[in-house]
Amino acid sequence: MPKLYHHPLDPQSRFVRLALAEYGVEAELQEERSFERRRDFLALNPAGTLPVLVEDNGTVVPGPAPIAEWLDESRGHTVPDRRLMPEPPHERIEVRRLLDWFNGKFFAEVSSWLVTEKVHKRFMSAEQGGGAPSMEMVRAARANIRYHLHYIGYLVARRNFIAGGDITFADLAAAAHLSCVDFLGDVPWSEDETARSWYARVKSRPSFRTLLADRVPGITPAANYADLDF
Amino acid sequence: MPKLYHHPLDPQSRFVRLALAEYGVEAELQEERSFERRRDFLALNPAGTLPVLVEDNGTVVPGPAPIAEWLDESRGHTVPDRRLMPEPPHERIEVRRLLDWFNGKFFAEVSSWLVTEKVHKRFMSAEQGGGAPSMEMVRAARANIRYHLHYIGYLVARRNFIAGGDITFADLAAAAHLSCVDFLGDVPWSEDETARSWYARVKSRPSFRTLLADRVPGITPAANYADLDF
Repeated sequence: MPKLYHHPLDPQSRFVRLALAEYGVEAELQEERSFERRRDFLALNPAGTLPVLVEDNGTVVPGPAPIAEWLDESRGHTVPDRRLMPEPPHERIEVRRLLDWFNGKFFAEVSSWLVTEKVHKRFMSAEQGGGAPSMEMVRAARANIRYHLHYIGYLVARRNFIAGGDITFADLAAAAHLSCVDFLGDVPWSEDETARSWYARVKSRPSFRTLLADRVPGITPAANYADLDF
Repeated sequence: MPKLYHHPLDPQSRFVRLALAEYGVEAELQEERSFERRRDFLALNPAGTLPVLVEDNGTVVPGPAPIAEWLDESRGHTVPDRRLMPEPPHERIEVRRLLDWFNGKFFAEVSSWLVTEKVHKRFMSAEQGGGAPSMEMVRAARANIRYHLHYIGYLVARRNFIAGGDITFADLAAAAHLSCVDFLGDVPWSEDETARSWYARVKSRPSFRTLLADRVPGITPAANYADLDF
């Protein structure tokens, strides 16, 4: 069985867990705290980042975008009716642009800050950068998320899903990042009804179930985190 | 003729210029200062980042990774003997991992800081964040580049090129980022002879010529910047 090095509240790991589930690939989950910079983990991915997928034959695939491309190249043909990377070249461009948006921009401006400040810093030593959350970072992330939420609403209102008429990797990336922020109670859902109803649609997919059951010691998820009708 | 929105010292724009030249695609270059957040440019790429490729038929491709994948999907078959994205699945993973490394990690830890502090800030208004370079950022980037240079040396010593036996998108990305840092005189070449000789090989390719002729008003490139035998 393939193995996925992940963290329950790492948005990019969640993106890959959703993609694996949508493609019907069962994987063993191995929790990794990337900030510990464990030697054997760095040997798998010298960048030291999550997630990393290790296939049965030993193939190592690090990083959300390389994993998405690999999953589609290795399994896409087995699920022709629900491929997450569309065939038409123009649609592929849009999926990749939005993958970069969520795994790059949204991560850098919102989800990475919130998860680092509110979750990882509890488990880090002082030397690793642990301590109380920086409320300045938390406030900045809470301000930034608002325009991302409206951008999702804008796209979905014109297309049905984020990158087009059908669900793609882009929806899974967006939903994965939002799910971490939602766990922490920091998504202002009332500000964009279109984005909220799109998220409700993605969240009720079977692939989402294990994410909603995730817990992290000492942290209680926000009240409506696991509700499909929130 | 396709049009490329770029900046002469933006490493990710340089990566795409190299890729276009290697694939024999001539493109009109349109200089863009992304920090100005020009309305028409944001309409092309809502992320506001460079580079953006616009094809003759109006297809808009934003961002270095989507452009690389698009170039290979649309032109790779026309240059079967010098494709920059290899066919074997394992090699594709490695190229994509290293594209992320240079366009993501190296950019975030080295080249974006140096170019922003030493170049862009001269042209920015106070409101845009302009002013004197932060020597703290410059020093941090100069410290970080050393381990990247050794990593390049480590890879090339085992493989000939960065991702394998032949040149790929990964070499162009690495060389593009280094070329911007080299323009500013901040690559400690004497620290890794293997990395230096690999860069000399890539730099002497015809695709590199126009990059070496680039100039930015008010900034003199480092003495050996354009020397092929440095």
